Amino acid sequence: MRRSIATVSVSGTLAEKFAAIRAAGFDAVEIFENDLLYFEGSPADVRHMAADLGLDIVLYQPFRDFDGVPAERLARNVERVKRKFDVMQQLGTDRLLVCSNVSPDMICDDALLAEQLAVLARAAGDAGVTICYEALAWGRHVRTFGHAWKLVNTVNHRNLTLALDSFHTLSLDDAPDGIAAIPGDRIGFVQIADAPRMQMDVLEWSRHYRCFPGQGDFALADFTAQVVKSGYKGPLSLEIFNDGFRGAPPAATAADGYRSLLLLEERTRDALQAEGVAAPALWHAPAAPANAQWQFLEFAVDDTARAQVANWLDKLHFRRAGQHRSKDVTLYQHGTAAIVLNAEPDSFAGAFFQRHGLSLCASAFRVDDAALALERAAGFGYQPFSGRVGPNERVVPAVQGPDGSLNYFVNEQPGQPTLFEADFSLTDIDGPVEVGPITGIDHVSLSLPAGSFDAWVLFLKSVFGLDAGAAVLLPDPYGLVRSRALFSQNRALRMVLNASLDQHTAAAETVRAYHGTGLNHVAFGTSDIFRAVTEFEAAGVPLLRVPANYYDDLDARFALDPSFLDSLRQHNLLYDRDERGGEFLHAYTETLDQRFFLELVERRNGYDGYGAPNAAVRLAAQARQRALAARHGGEEA
Amino acid sequence: MRRSIATVSVSGTLAEKFAAIRAAGFDAVEIFENDLLYFEGSPADVRHMAADLGLDIVLYQPFRDFDGVPAERLARNVERVKRKFDVMQQLGTDRLLVCSNVSPDMICDDALLAEQLAVLARAAGDAGVTICYEALAWGRHVRTFGHAWKLVNTVNHRNLTLALDSFHTLSLDDAPDGIAAIPGDRIGFVQIADAPRMQMDVLEWSRHYRCFPGQGDFALADFTAQVVKSGYKGPLSLEIFNDGFRGAPPAATAADGYRSLLLLEERTRDALQAEGVAAPALWHAPAAPANAQWQFLEFAVDDTARAQVANWLDKLHFRRAGQHRSKDVTLYQHGTAAIVLNAEPDSFAGAFFQRHGLSLCASAFRVDDAALALERAAGFGYQPFSGRVGPNERVVPAVQGPDGSLNYFVNEQPGQPTLFEADFSLTDIDGPVEVGPITGIDHVSLSLPAGSFDAWVLFLKSVFGLDAGAAVLLPDPYGLVRSRALFSQNRALRMVLNASLDQHTAAAETVRAYHGTGLNHVAFGTSDIFRAVTEFEAAGVPLLRVPANYYDDLDARFALDPSFLDSLRQHNLLYDRDERGGEFLHAYTETLDQRFFLELVERRNGYDGYGAPNAAVRLAAQARQRALAARHGGEEA
Repeated sequence: MRRSIATVSVSGTLAEKFAAIRAAGFDAVEIFENDLLYFEGSPADVRHMAADLGLDIVLYQPFRDFDGVPAERLARNVERVKRKFDVMQQLGTDRLLVCSNVSPDMICDDALLAEQLAVLARAAGDAGVTICYEALAWGRHVRTFGHAWKLVNTVNHRNLTLALDSFHTLSLDDAPDGIAAIPGDRIGFVQIADAPRMQMDVLEWSRHYRCFPGQGDFALADFTAQVVKSGYKGPLSLEIFNDGFRGAPPAATAADGYRSLLLLEERTRDALQAEGVAAPALWHAPAAPANAQWQFLEFAVDDTARAQVANWLDKLHFRRAGQHRSKDVTLYQHGTAAIVLNAEPDSFAGAFFQRHGLSLCASAFRVDDAALALERAAGFGYQPFSGRVGPNERVVPAVQGPDGSLNYFVNEQPGQPTLFEADFSLTDIDGPVEVGPITGIDHVSLSLPAGSFDAWVLFLKSVFGLDAGAAVLLPDPYGLVRSRALFSQNRALRMVLNASLDQHTAAAETVRAYHGTGLNHVAFGTSDIFRAVTEFEAAGVPLLRVPANYYDDLDARFALDPSFLDSLRQHNLLYDRDERGGEFLHAYTETLDQRFFLELVERRNGYDGYGAPNAAVRLAAQARQRALAARHGGEEA
Repeated sequence: MRRSIATVSVSGTLAEKFAAIRAAGFDAVEIFENDLLYFEGSPADVRHMAADLGLDIVLYQPFRDFDGVPAERLARNVERVKRKFDVMQQLGTDRLLVCSNVSPDMICDDALLAEQLAVLARAAGDAGVTICYEALAWGRHVRTFGHAWKLVNTVNHRNLTLALDSFHTLSLDDAPDGIAAIPGDRIGFVQIADAPRMQMDVLEWSRHYRCFPGQGDFALADFTAQVVKSGYKGPLSLEIFNDGFRGAPPAATAADGYRSLLLLEERTRDALQAEGVAAPALWHAPAAPANAQWQFLEFAVDDTARAQVANWLDKLHFRRAGQHRSKDVTLYQHGTAAIVLNAEPDSFAGAFFQRHGLSLCASAFRVDDAALALERAAGFGYQPFSGRVGPNERVVPAVQGPDGSLNYFVNEQPGQPTLFEADFSLTDIDGPVEVGPITGIDHVSLSLPAGSFDAWVLFLKSVFGLDAGAAVLLPDPYGLVRSRALFSQNRALRMVLNASLDQHTAAAETVRAYHGTGLNHVAFGTSDIFRAVTEFEAAGVPLLRVPANYYDDLDARFALDPSFLDSLRQHNLLYDRDERGGEFLHAYTETLDQRFFLELVERRNGYDGYGAPNAAVRLAAQARQRALAARHGGEEA
C-alpha cells in the first residue's frame, strides 16, 4: 500500500515538510489547507516542488460544513468548493476531503444531506474531482463512518466516496467491524492516527494528542485489517495533530511516522494471517526476536570514571571477569548481569564519552539470530553500525538507538566460542557467575528529553517487539516525570522510559548532564533482597535513606507484619503489593557521580510492575541528597 | 482573614516550601500528606520547622474514602483515622480534611453516611480534632457542598464541619449562592483555587490545571463573598495542583499566590460593597488607575542599537522631540506614541542592556495619581524602584515587573512642567505631535518564557486592573504559541502576552535572545492604514510579505469587494472581521535585528480583537524570513 502523511503532522515551512517527508521514505502527501495558505508561491509551485522530490499529492483537505444547510447557503457552498477544485487542479490532486458538518444550526435530515451531497458529487464529477466524505467524531449529526457510508451509498455517485480516519472511529469506541463489508473502491481515502486514551473533550484530544501508530492505545491493526479486507487499494495516510510534533525537528518526526506505518502494516498482516487472510501488499520483516535478553551493558568511561564504577561494582560483588583482547575494555559479571567498561579512546565509546561523559554507550542483547534481528531493525530505518574489530574477534551487528547509543545483537552458536570467549581474555569461566545475591538485570531505566520519549517507544516496539504499559506521571519535588515501561512477553527484557515535563527535576538534570542521553538507573534482580542489602551495605554500598514516615504510611496502607515492616525500615527497603498478592521489595543506592544510580529488586508471586507508588518517595529522597551535596559542595568551594 | 496555602501548591522539599511560603507573606499552611511522607524527620520536626518560621499548620489533608462503607470496613477506617489523629497531634494541628468517597463500590445511602460521619465526629471529638468534610466534584455520591452540608448538618456534632473548595463547586457550575446561609462556625475550612475553563474530565482538570485566583476563569469573588457572608472566620487557603508550579522555583510561585489572595480579597470586598455589606477584614489598597494610558516605551540601547532603532523611527516619521537634560537619552514622538531610547551606560537601562541587549527596559503609564498607583503596586509586593535623578528632574515612581523591567507611573499637574518638559530639552512642543498617520500605541505584545505567563497575567490584573481575554493557541511553523490579551476597560491600555510551548518558535528564540525578557512587537494605531503603509513603504520601511494564497482564502471567507481585496493584497495588509461587523486591518514590518517588529493597525466599527486568525500567516511569513536570513548569513560566512 502507498504510504502517505498529512503536512500538518510535521513542523516547518512547506518546503521543509516536503523534504523531511520524502527523506523518511513516503511517496505521497496530503496537503493541509493552512500549509498552502502560508506558502509564498502558487499551488502550481507546490505541485512542482512535490514533483521534484518525487512526492505525489494524494489529497487536499479539509473542506468544512458543506452539508445540511439551507438552500441559499448550499449555492454559496458550491461556489466555495468550485474555487477549491481550481486550487486542486493547480496542485495536481483529485481527492478532496469533506468533513461532516459541525455547525450547531445545521439541518439534521439524512434525506436533505444525501440530496446536497449528490449536488456536491455532480460538481466534483464535472471537475474530475473525487470527494472523500469523512464523519468527524464531533460532527453535529454525522459522527460515525457507518452514518457517512449510509449517505455515500444512498447518493451512489462515483465522485462521492467515503473517507475513514481511525481516530474518529476509535475515539468514540465505535467498532470498526463494518468496514470490511464496504466495497473497497467506494472508500476514497484512509487516514491513520493513534492516541493515548484520555478523559477529555474529543475535539481537544484530536487536535493536540494524536500520535503515530504504536505510540498510543488504539487497536489500529484491527482497524487496518478491516480496511484491507474491504479491498481498499489507496494510500494509508498519517494525519497527526500533536503539539509535540509541532515543535520538534521535522526529519526525525517524519522518520518515526514512516516506521510507525511499517510496524502497523506488519501487525495488520499478522492479524489478517491469524484469520487466514493473505495480505502480500503489506510490509513485513523478520519477526522480532522472541527470546531476547540482556547480554551486557557497556559504559563509556575514562580512567577516572572507570575507577568510580569499578569501585561500585566491586562493592556489589561483581567479579572482574575478563579483559578485551585488543581494546581497553573490561568485563564484570555477577549472576547473568554483565557490565562492560570501555575506556578505548579511539572507538565509538571514546567518541560517546567525549560527548556525553560517563554514560551507557551500548546495550547488548542476546537473541536467537543476530543477523535477522539486524535485518529487522535496519528495515525500520535504524542505522546499522560497525566498529573496529581485532583479529579473531567477533563482528557483532548493531543499530543506533534514538539517542545514538548502540544496540548489539549477539547470538551464540553451539560448539563455537562465545562472544566473551572470542573477544576477552577471561579470568576463568564464562557464563553465569554465582558470586553473590544478584541474579541478573531486572530492568534498565532511561532519562530522556521529553521530545524523544515516543521515539523510544517506537524503537523498542519495532526493533524488539516489546509491549508498552500505560504511561504514568510521577511527582518529583521539582516537577513531574512521565514514565512508561516496555517489556518482552516473557519479561526477560524490561525497560523504563522517563522524561521530565519540567526543567528542574533530577531526570531533566541527568538529560542535561549527559547532553541528551541518560541512563537513569540499572535495576539488578535478586531472590533474597534482605541478604543482598545486608551484604552490600557491609561492603560499603550507600543505600538511599527512606524517611520513617514512609513506613508509617505503608503500615496504614497494607497492615504489614510488624517484624517484616521493621526489617524493611531497617534496610531502607521500599515495598509494593499488587491486587493479586504479588510483592515488590526494592532498594536504591545513592547516585553515582550525582547522576545515575542502581536499584536492587526482588519480585514475589509474579509482581509485574516497578513500584510506581514508591517513585515519589525515591525522587524526594534523591532531591534531598542533591540539595545536601550542593550545600556541601558550596561549603567546600 | 488569615492567608494560607497548601504545601502541594509549590515545588521543592518541605523545608524549601515552608521558606518560600513564609517569605511570600503567608502565616498559615496546610500540610499535604505526601509532603510529610517524603520528609526525613518526624511530624514533630515539621511542627518545629513551621513554628521557627512563624507558620501555623492549620490543616492536615487528605483522608479518603471514610464514608459509605460496610461495617467491617468502617472499623478499619476508624483505626486508620486514629493513626492520623496521632500524626496531627505531633504536627500540632487540629483540622483534618476528609474527602467524600470516590470508590465505585461505596454505599450511596445518606442515612448510613450520616451514621458513619457521626462515628467519625465522635472519634475526632475524643482526639480534640475537627473534621472538615469536603465534597469532591468527582465523588461517587457526594459531589456538591450542598449535599455535604446536608450530611454535616444532620450529624450536628461540633467536631464535624464543612470544608469548601471553590474548584469543586465552580468546576461543576454549581451555584455558590447557598453558602451564605450556612452558619459560618459550621464551615471548618475554605480552600480557594481558580482554573481555566476546559472541556475535560474534572479530576484531570483539577489535578493538573488549577491556578491562582485571577489567573483562571472562575468567578471567585462571588464565591468568596458568599463565604464572608456566612460569617466564616477561618483561613482562606490556596490549594493549587498545577503542573507548571510543580516545576517552577517555589519563591516566585508562593509570592504570586499571596498576591492572588490579596487581589481576590479586594474584589470580594468590592462585590460585598456593591451589596452594601462591609468587610473590614478583607485586604484593600488604592483602586487600580482608571484612566491609565501609554506615556512612553523605553528601550535600552547602545550606540549601534540606537542607530538601528532611530533609523526605523525616522522611516516611520517619528520626530526626534527631545534630548534628556542629564543622560544619554533621546525622545521620539509621533501622535501620542512616545519612544525613549536610553543609552546611558551607568543606569538601570545600561544594566538592562548588558543583560538583555536591545530590549524594552521600561514602560511608562500616564495615570491620575502616580503615588497611589505605586502604593497599590507595592501593596501587591512588587518591588519599587528609584533611579538616579538629575537636578530639577522629576522623580518618577516605578515598580519592577515579572521580567525585572520598570513600570513608571506618571501624572501631570495643571500649571506644572510636564515630565517631558522637566527632564528633556525639547525640540519645540510637548504633547501629541501630528507628523504622520500614527495616532498612538494600540498595543504592546511580549514574548515570555512559558513559566512566567501567569505571573504576568497577575501583574497586569493587580497593578493596572486590566481584564484578560481568553487564552488562545496560535500555530507557528515550529510549534505552538499561547497568547492572551489584557486590556483596560476603556481600551487605552492593551497588552498581548505570548509564550512558546516549544523551543523552536520565533517567540522562544526571542525569549532566549533577550535572556528571559522579550518585546514581541509594538502595534501603532492609525485611522488610515492605506495612507500609513503607502507613506512608510515609500520611506523604506520593509513590510512583511503576505502570501497570495492568503488573499484567495480571505475572499472565500468574507466575499470582499474585489477592489478592496486588491488594495489589501497590494499593501500586504491582513484583514479580520468580527460578528458585529467590526473590522481590523493590519500590517507587520519585517523584524528588526531578527527579533522584534512593529505592527500598524486600524480598527473599524469597534473591532476589539488582535487579528488572531491571521497570526498563523504572520508567524509562517516570519519563519520564512528567518530561514532566508539564516541562509543569507550562511552564504556570507
